[in-house]
Amino acid sequence: MKSSATGCSVEEAMRLLGGRWRLLIVSYLLDGPKRFSELRRDIPAISQRMLTLDLRAMEEAGFVKRTVFPTVPATVEYELTADGARLVPVVEVMPTFGLWLKERDARREPTSP
Amino acid sequence: MKSSATGCSVEEAMRLLGGRWRLLIVSYLLDGPKRFSELRRDIPAISQRMLTLDLRAMEEAGFVKRTVFPTVPATVEYELTADGARLVPVVEVMPTFGLWLKERDARREPTSP
Repeated sequence: MKSSATGCSVEEAMRLLGGRWRLLIVSYLLDGPKRFSELRRDIPAISQRMLTLDLRAMEEAGFVKRTVFPTVPATVEYELTADGARLVPVVEVMPTFGLWLKERDARREPTSP
Repeated sequence: MKSSATGCSVEEAMRLLGGRWRLLIVSYLLDGPKRFSELRRDIPAISQRMLTLDLRAMEEAGFVKRTVFPTVPATVEYELTADGARLVPVVEVMPTFGLWLKERDARREPTSP
């Protein structure tokens, strides 16, 4: 992984968590192991390619474990590792801000005449 | 701003905060108003273009205020708005995770023989 130029811990965190989907993926994995198709259904706006890349990056970083079950066809499950569980405080702070942002933007939207 | 398809509050937050630099920019603006050049010095790894785009997006979202001072040449300062201050809890949770990540990765790095 490219080492963070300024060594600043916020940058270090965002180097892994940056991007629109990673924290969202983690928030769904907090519910327990999920198949790829389940994550795609949970996050309809994410592309197959983006989900694959984000899961692989978090697997390489040691935050997600990928298990292949010998069914026919094979089933693949993703789950948070112990390191991944470190992300809980980061994920938990988001909904409060996200809900406030949604309500604020709803108030701001011009009501149709 | 594109409305978030799933309406999930984490996605809503990440729609604004996603990307590698926005939370880092906010963390530096917590220290008070900053000039563009100061932000570039604080975050050497960010390109001029990316910093411009991120500041503009946060300005449009109402989280950053841009003030132009009539000096010659003009000076431009950026500061968090009251809405921007809502990001403090999100920014504050990052360093703990970032520091842990840095120390973990330092332990993982193969020590040169």
